[in-house]
Amino acid sequence: MDPLRFMLDQSQIPTHWYNVVADMPHPPAPTLGPDNKPVPLEKMAAIFPMALLEQEISSERWIPIPEPVREIYRLWRPTPLIRAKRLEDMLGTPARIYYKNEGVSSAGSHKPNTAVAQAYYNREAGICRLTTETGAGQWGSSIAFAGQMFGIEVRIFMVKVSYLQKPFRRSMMRTWGAEVIASPSTLTQTGRDFLAKDPENPGSLGIAISEAVEEAASRADTNYALGSVLNHVALHQTVIGLEAKKQFELAGDWPDVVFAPCGGGSSFAGAAFPFFADNAAGGHKGKQVRLVAVEPASCPTLTKGTYAYDYGDASGFTPIMKMYTLGHDFMPPGIHAGGLRYHGDSPLVSQLYHEGLIEAIAVPQLATFEAGVMFARAEGIIPAPESNHAIRAAIDEALLCKASGEAKTIFVNLTGHGHFDMAAYDRYFDGELEDHVYAEDAIRTSLQHLPKVG
Amino acid sequence: MDPLRFMLDQSQIPTHWYNVVADMPHPPAPTLGPDNKPVPLEKMAAIFPMALLEQEISSERWIPIPEPVREIYRLWRPTPLIRAKRLEDMLGTPARIYYKNEGVSSAGSHKPNTAVAQAYYNREAGICRLTTETGAGQWGSSIAFAGQMFGIEVRIFMVKVSYLQKPFRRSMMRTWGAEVIASPSTLTQTGRDFLAKDPENPGSLGIAISEAVEEAASRADTNYALGSVLNHVALHQTVIGLEAKKQFELAGDWPDVVFAPCGGGSSFAGAAFPFFADNAAGGHKGKQVRLVAVEPASCPTLTKGTYAYDYGDASGFTPIMKMYTLGHDFMPPGIHAGGLRYHGDSPLVSQLYHEGLIEAIAVPQLATFEAGVMFARAEGIIPAPESNHAIRAAIDEALLCKASGEAKTIFVNLTGHGHFDMAAYDRYFDGELEDHVYAEDAIRTSLQHLPKVG
Repeated sequence: MDPLRFMLDQSQIPTHWYNVVADMPHPPAPTLGPDNKPVPLEKMAAIFPMALLEQEISSERWIPIPEPVREIYRLWRPTPLIRAKRLEDMLGTPARIYYKNEGVSSAGSHKPNTAVAQAYYNREAGICRLTTETGAGQWGSSIAFAGQMFGIEVRIFMVKVSYLQKPFRRSMMRTWGAEVIASPSTLTQTGRDFLAKDPENPGSLGIAISEAVEEAASRADTNYALGSVLNHVALHQTVIGLEAKKQFELAGDWPDVVFAPCGGGSSFAGAAFPFFADNAAGGHKGKQVRLVAVEPASCPTLTKGTYAYDYGDASGFTPIMKMYTLGHDFMPPGIHAGGLRYHGDSPLVSQLYHEGLIEAIAVPQLATFEAGVMFARAEGIIPAPESNHAIRAAIDEALLCKASGEAKTIFVNLTGHGHFDMAAYDRYFDGELEDHVYAEDAIRTSLQHLPKVG
Repeated sequence: MDPLRFMLDQSQIPTHWYNVVADMPHPPAPTLGPDNKPVPLEKMAAIFPMALLEQEISSERWIPIPEPVREIYRLWRPTPLIRAKRLEDMLGTPARIYYKNEGVSSAGSHKPNTAVAQAYYNREAGICRLTTETGAGQWGSSIAFAGQMFGIEVRIFMVKVSYLQKPFRRSMMRTWGAEVIASPSTLTQTGRDFLAKDPENPGSLGIAISEAVEEAASRADTNYALGSVLNHVALHQTVIGLEAKKQFELAGDWPDVVFAPCGGGSSFAGAAFPFFADNAAGGHKGKQVRLVAVEPASCPTLTKGTYAYDYGDASGFTPIMKMYTLGHDFMPPGIHAGGLRYHGDSPLVSQLYHEGLIEAIAVPQLATFEAGVMFARAEGIIPAPESNHAIRAAIDEALLCKASGEAKTIFVNLTGHGHFDMAAYDRYFDGELEDHVYAEDAIRTSLQHLPKVG
């Protein structure tokens, strides 16, 4: 029997994160304040610890992972790289499909990779309380877990539609000692304003971010933690790709193409950036690896958005960042991949996409669930709806290989399990899920509200 | 950093199951039919494939694991053995606590170890349909998964109280293509009889077994699969302990005591029997390992039951087996460890207990959830309520070590994760869970209904 699972020893947990900025052809566009000038670090220090802000602007290629962070990583890392042999057989493809199972983490997704680092740096800075937002609940449960690891209190604003769809994600956060609030809430001015306009507002990641930032900015003992988008978050996720590269060496194989779901961009960054390092250096043994961000057709930030300065949140509370955006007040449909319902995208991912160094595709909801069920029936793992986006893309690529006879190697970032998403699977089986039409008009309207720059 | 996780290569998945019968001081008491004579295999062949029946009565020490079964095991096995260092630190104990994480399996528990084997042998026998029962849903989702792996249709009678408490376990079974029926149901005579007596009957494992057996016995294309109790089930689970022994060698350590939850007995058998082999041979390096079955105080089969012949199901449909029992019509309270709500116990476990070769303790529900939350906060994994029983016992042992200063090595069978049990955790946090009083009167009554033998 060929080996199907490629494991690393705990001593092989990366000692450094990889910073893609060192290998980008151009420096990242700066984050700007209301005055259209780069935001000074000191200003951001109201809600972030200095160590994370330094990572945010660093151009060092390698940034050391503190030992206490690696110590917590050891609870689940290194994660396995698994060859999806049964899925290949089911598809009848000559392609080889591998997935990195980030669902084995404590909170069931890749999110703890950065949550643990953020909790650590905040504790080191003497902060004893964090606020954050969560969509599908993957980030919320991750920061709840990470806070528990370092003795930090956590308050989580959870997008209301997910709060209602996923009560057990709340229970999970509670098990790790965090407090969970449905957003929009009455606890912040932002929340009250949105509720005044529409008491039935289902919430969005953008609104929840506004609420969490507003509270963190108003309390000295409290900082804010973001689960995606920012450079330091993308940085922390690179443990995924760094481990995967060692594991592909073990497997005696190497990806032709990497697929990762893309909402705020950090799971894509985590899987893809370490392979980008090789691309930038001329390729792995001279071969360029295709790096493909997979987003929902209903929230098609990279594929249908504009590359422009925009706010990170819905109400214009944050500084503005240059990124692909659908407009900060774009309200995505209530699809079940809550983690991908974000109007913007990581500025690093956006810049690489803008420069043609990575690719992006958008896939419709029903096709992603079909792919997830196929994967579950072949591999025994029920994936998170977010992960189903990457799996869909991988299956499509494998089917192209079947048609062409090419034996490509496909790498999928399986970002999480779907144990808290079974209601969505039920709706899929019951024929109640739909493909949302690409909201061209809504996006055109929201793009008219971009902030003016320069 | 000391290693915390002890992994085996996939080539080290056991090639044989260990059959404890070979090392028991006395042969197992035979299973008897209505005539009080040992049931001929041919009769059992109405609902089980011959290969499993041969395992049921075998006294061979080692039974080969078919390659197609090992092939499926590879989707998640070998499972990790993990040192619970953070839990040790939280308790301040000199004890070393290790757990075998069976929750990494496809269905999230140890149950697929036998489900896969059973589905395989049934397919080899030309069977294309299986019925079974499930309590907490761990077994049901495992057989759904296993059926999917071998192209077998599966119908699952799910104890109604769990069916209602755990809708997402149903969704999981559905994802793997199985059909799930709340038991008692109107599909069988047994179900109709129970509903006639009490339309609100919350169900029990015993009733659900009766329903599944009744249906399997009445259809030629359909066999029955049992998730615990029987000898062949205990046999298949020994991959747990066999792997653990290799992993303890890697760790340079060896358990002084093994704790496993005990409902029908198979997870205990799986973890403990391979260590019993050493005990029977004079001990590991001369040392006997304590083997402790941990059961719920509300369903205390080993600690408060009687060692006698009884039916495996609630309505007297099955042959009778010599085992510890609370009486086949004992209705355990609706505790959240649904997998431990069984009136009887594995005949092999029962006989070893009766002969004083293993130990048993009973723990109350609230204490098990307290232990589970401590474990989640220390180790990042939210355990199944069943597993919390073993964790409770391990914590108590570790606290005894703290008092005595002994540095014992404790091995816990972490049989599953609690992702589908968050409603139970919520009830615990909300103060709504209770400790059921030991139902002395109810047990005394049900014990009066034991079948007459010989």
